[in-house]
Amino acid sequence: MNNYSAPTRDMRFVLNELAGLSELNQLPGLEEATVDTVDAVLDEAARFAAAVLAPLNRTGDVAGASCEDARVMPPAGFRDAYRAFTEGGWGSLPFAPEYGGQGLPELVAAATNEIWQSANMAFALCPMLTEGCAVALGIHGSPALKNMFLPKLVSGEWAGTMNLTEPQAGSDLAELKTRAVPNGDSYLISGRKIFITWGDHDFTDNIVHMVLARLPEAPPGVKGISLFLVPKYLVNADGSGGRRNDVRPVSVEHKLGIHGSPTCVMSYGDNGGAHGYLVGTKHDGMACMFTMMNHARLAVGIQGLSIAERAYQQALGYAREREQGKIRGQSGRARIIQHADVRRMLMLMKSGCEAMRALAYVAAAALDHIHHSAQPARHTERFALLTPVVKAWCTELAQELTSLGVQVHGGMGYIEETGAAQHFRDARITSIYEGTNGIQAQDLVGRKVLRDQGKALRELIAEIRRTAADLSATEVNQAVIKRALGDAVEQLAQATDWLLANAQRDPNAPGAVALNFLMLTGYVCGGWQLARAAMIAAAKAAATNDGFYQSKIITARFYAEHYLPRSAGHFSAIRAGSESMMALGEEQF
Amino acid sequence: MNNYSAPTRDMRFVLNELAGLSELNQLPGLEEATVDTVDAVLDEAARFAAAVLAPLNRTGDVAGASCEDARVMPPAGFRDAYRAFTEGGWGSLPFAPEYGGQGLPELVAAATNEIWQSANMAFALCPMLTEGCAVALGIHGSPALKNMFLPKLVSGEWAGTMNLTEPQAGSDLAELKTRAVPNGDSYLISGRKIFITWGDHDFTDNIVHMVLARLPEAPPGVKGISLFLVPKYLVNADGSGGRRNDVRPVSVEHKLGIHGSPTCVMSYGDNGGAHGYLVGTKHDGMACMFTMMNHARLAVGIQGLSIAERAYQQALGYAREREQGKIRGQSGRARIIQHADVRRMLMLMKSGCEAMRALAYVAAAALDHIHHSAQPARHTERFALLTPVVKAWCTELAQELTSLGVQVHGGMGYIEETGAAQHFRDARITSIYEGTNGIQAQDLVGRKVLRDQGKALRELIAEIRRTAADLSATEVNQAVIKRALGDAVEQLAQATDWLLANAQRDPNAPGAVALNFLMLTGYVCGGWQLARAAMIAAAKAAATNDGFYQSKIITARFYAEHYLPRSAGHFSAIRAGSESMMALGEEQF
Repeated sequence: MNNYSAPTRDMRFVLNELAGLSELNQLPGLEEATVDTVDAVLDEAARFAAAVLAPLNRTGDVAGASCEDARVMPPAGFRDAYRAFTEGGWGSLPFAPEYGGQGLPELVAAATNEIWQSANMAFALCPMLTEGCAVALGIHGSPALKNMFLPKLVSGEWAGTMNLTEPQAGSDLAELKTRAVPNGDSYLISGRKIFITWGDHDFTDNIVHMVLARLPEAPPGVKGISLFLVPKYLVNADGSGGRRNDVRPVSVEHKLGIHGSPTCVMSYGDNGGAHGYLVGTKHDGMACMFTMMNHARLAVGIQGLSIAERAYQQALGYAREREQGKIRGQSGRARIIQHADVRRMLMLMKSGCEAMRALAYVAAAALDHIHHSAQPARHTERFALLTPVVKAWCTELAQELTSLGVQVHGGMGYIEETGAAQHFRDARITSIYEGTNGIQAQDLVGRKVLRDQGKALRELIAEIRRTAADLSATEVNQAVIKRALGDAVEQLAQATDWLLANAQRDPNAPGAVALNFLMLTGYVCGGWQLARAAMIAAAKAAATNDGFYQSKIITARFYAEHYLPRSAGHFSAIRAGSESMMALGEEQF
Repeated sequence: MNNYSAPTRDMRFVLNELAGLSELNQLPGLEEATVDTVDAVLDEAARFAAAVLAPLNRTGDVAGASCEDARVMPPAGFRDAYRAFTEGGWGSLPFAPEYGGQGLPELVAAATNEIWQSANMAFALCPMLTEGCAVALGIHGSPALKNMFLPKLVSGEWAGTMNLTEPQAGSDLAELKTRAVPNGDSYLISGRKIFITWGDHDFTDNIVHMVLARLPEAPPGVKGISLFLVPKYLVNADGSGGRRNDVRPVSVEHKLGIHGSPTCVMSYGDNGGAHGYLVGTKHDGMACMFTMMNHARLAVGIQGLSIAERAYQQALGYAREREQGKIRGQSGRARIIQHADVRRMLMLMKSGCEAMRALAYVAAAALDHIHHSAQPARHTERFALLTPVVKAWCTELAQELTSLGVQVHGGMGYIEETGAAQHFRDARITSIYEGTNGIQAQDLVGRKVLRDQGKALRELIAEIRRTAADLSATEVNQAVIKRALGDAVEQLAQATDWLLANAQRDPNAPGAVALNFLMLTGYVCGGWQLARAAMIAAAKAAATNDGFYQSKIITARFYAEHYLPRSAGHFSAIRAGSESMMALGEEQF
């Protein structure tokens, strides 16, 4: 019941038909990414996930991770799984061959990442963060740092972490206190970091910590933060392992979920200072960190998809087998998948997952265009716009869908052994880390819409309007989608006008409407992608007898009927502005 | 941070201004329930909850309950708290004085129940089920049974349980297999029951199990089920305790939440049969069980309110203290309650809780009219209509609001020590037990709307329209509410027409639209009560300088702006009917 089978059929549909894999394959540097190669990669990833990672998902949840004597003990089996993962070359997929990577598109890495996160989210966080480190180092690191650390991060021989948060500095990194003092050609780092995912473990000979800290002469606020690479073990000039650096895990948190993933308090410099190396230029750590965070935000959005897909598969398996009640006109007991209300839940899960997958993969493809196209500007703008939407909308939806996964199981869903509750608990972090969804919404409204006066968003709206116009007004399924998508995208257009008109007048307005604005954008974008899918599937269905294409049309219609109308609620809430929200005195709460 | 303070001000407002406590006080049998008496009861309940129950909430979650050698061990401190609870007379509040009750209205019991469930939901389940048992016994039991068991259930000297579910019989009780065989003037019961809340413990000298079972000659299905009272210890004719009955707890479940409440597998008749006594008439057990369940459904709806209120208080406390970020134009760090998006979450929690409270208490008052009015028919109909709405809408909202409670805390919300995650875990059961929310929705659509051709609902709609008409069209806050409530109630009216028109044509339609229909009804009813509150508060605010009344108006407006527009989404989903929902073959999922 608690198995996982990667949905490779829909993944391939999205990769090939919606996200333009074959276009990417034409770009310089992505010649390896043929349809056949990617097919084989997906099949192998699916096998590995089902055989190695998925079986450790519940055992990891039950055992959890612990910390004793400044050493973290991950759950049993995770170390061997990590070895197998790196030996399979899975961590190196999207990196340049010059550092040992396989030169495959971020789009393909998004698909394999979906698989890892579905199979075992607690485990998959470790390679996910390692990949984020490698990306930041590849872009911002000096040649010497890259030569020393990048190949081993790419191979997964060493793992990586991100160290941002301190007790007083969460969403607001301006309050960061960790210090870095020059010490020859390196720096001595001291301070305490919290919420460090996979901050310590025994998977690898070394761990590369990316740490935000302040130099002595740094200006206050976020403009005085620099990024440092701090290895767990110092590295000798010949690349061999040196002595232990002055960094250690202090404790691991007791969390609601992702028990298998140690979330560490990390202490730097208890004995004089941890040796660190500047990444990028002084005081420019936030720019480097945003490289990692944008990468991680896309990945966390995919986690939302992944955990919802896993919950869907589990609920579906139960609904197909569990007998309860009767269907009018049929003899014998019904399996609960036959009951309309259970169908409703399963269809919400199925169509929600397909919409998230389509949107997240399309965003990932934009990243490849940025890296490999001759004229990336349009893609840069689109990716910047979509990143907070993918992160926050997919993870909000994941809350709903993993909760439905529990609900389909009835009372059994509340019993931990069933496994549905774990997905619900694991999912809950995705709305919080890598910038809470509130922060994502501020990013969307402030940096991505108001800053360019709505230019990028209006281009997106125009594209969605064209999709809505392309849908058939006479074919019954497409006509339903056409109307719903058309209504919703006009609400998004009007909401954009409202935001631009009111942001100056009322300084509270952007913050007040941000989350509703993001959710409205997300529902419209999901509907847009499923509308594209429905049109492509309609053309294919006419030529084949394949039930898959018919199901894509039905799923898109269901989405149009059940998700897109939520736009109206978000639109109304946006137009309400900040007045009632901010009217109460604090003592009136 | 993790304290609880009963919101007695809003409770009194709802009791007195919305739910008509003083009207109830005029009814025969409720003469004790003066405003002053009820005030004193609430204050004392608030004190007891804060001092005794709330401090055990997290310790009970951490310790959990266990089962060894057929004995259940509740968490430390719970037994003493239960003693203090019964000594305070809290279990006897709504019962008739002839059985030792205090003769207070169900309305007042609803308010104290809110307090217990907020303070410690795992604990409060025990008296809640005992009360349900006592209600069913009081209505359906023979005089001899009542004399023997009722006074001790009312006093709480003995506790009670409900035994419905078996592994193959969850939502579908027709499949019940537990047997009852006549044995003189009693019966011998044998079978296995699961999900038995507080199925065993050491709080009391005896436990009274209400058990559904089949007699040998019983017809198949739900019409062959009878209800039996099975005491843990047999009772001698003089009322003294006799020998142990043939019933024992086998194990307790490992659950997502309410860890302090043992959820037991119970075995009856391992040694020949447990002695049981028929409650009500043979084969009429479902009628008796519905008495208990309707009572429990109202109580579970209140649990939704309670856990959301607790989560709100915790989030509010954190938001008032946690410093993060800045507010434009202000020097120094902001407390996060000053940020608009945090306000949005707190206002959703506050207005959601106030709407739930108003609706649940108004439903409870209908129960008192049923029991004490000369002409109860109208109230019977209204209570029947509102029961599934209170149960399912409040508990669905509780999922959202306890999740927001986590979100307000940011990363700290995911750490178990914070306590926010416990409320989120505890809340999750409320959508499932006492009939899943899907079952509630079927009940609403099938038994409460289609059966009377929409009569009761149309009377409710007419009443809501009158409230909308009464709101000022010129005062700015009321005008916002008037428009939003007016729009939403018309959607409910149209949805009702749609349902009545399509239920015959499409047998899947009622099931397909049920949950959306229930949620639409819930949002409209919540808005209706807050609209009433706003008008009353406006009149009071004009006469006093009390910020409370102004806050009621603002909260009602916020609800109208942020919750009522969700009606549009539910209405659209209803009109979509069952077509896309049921279109896929099972193999296409």
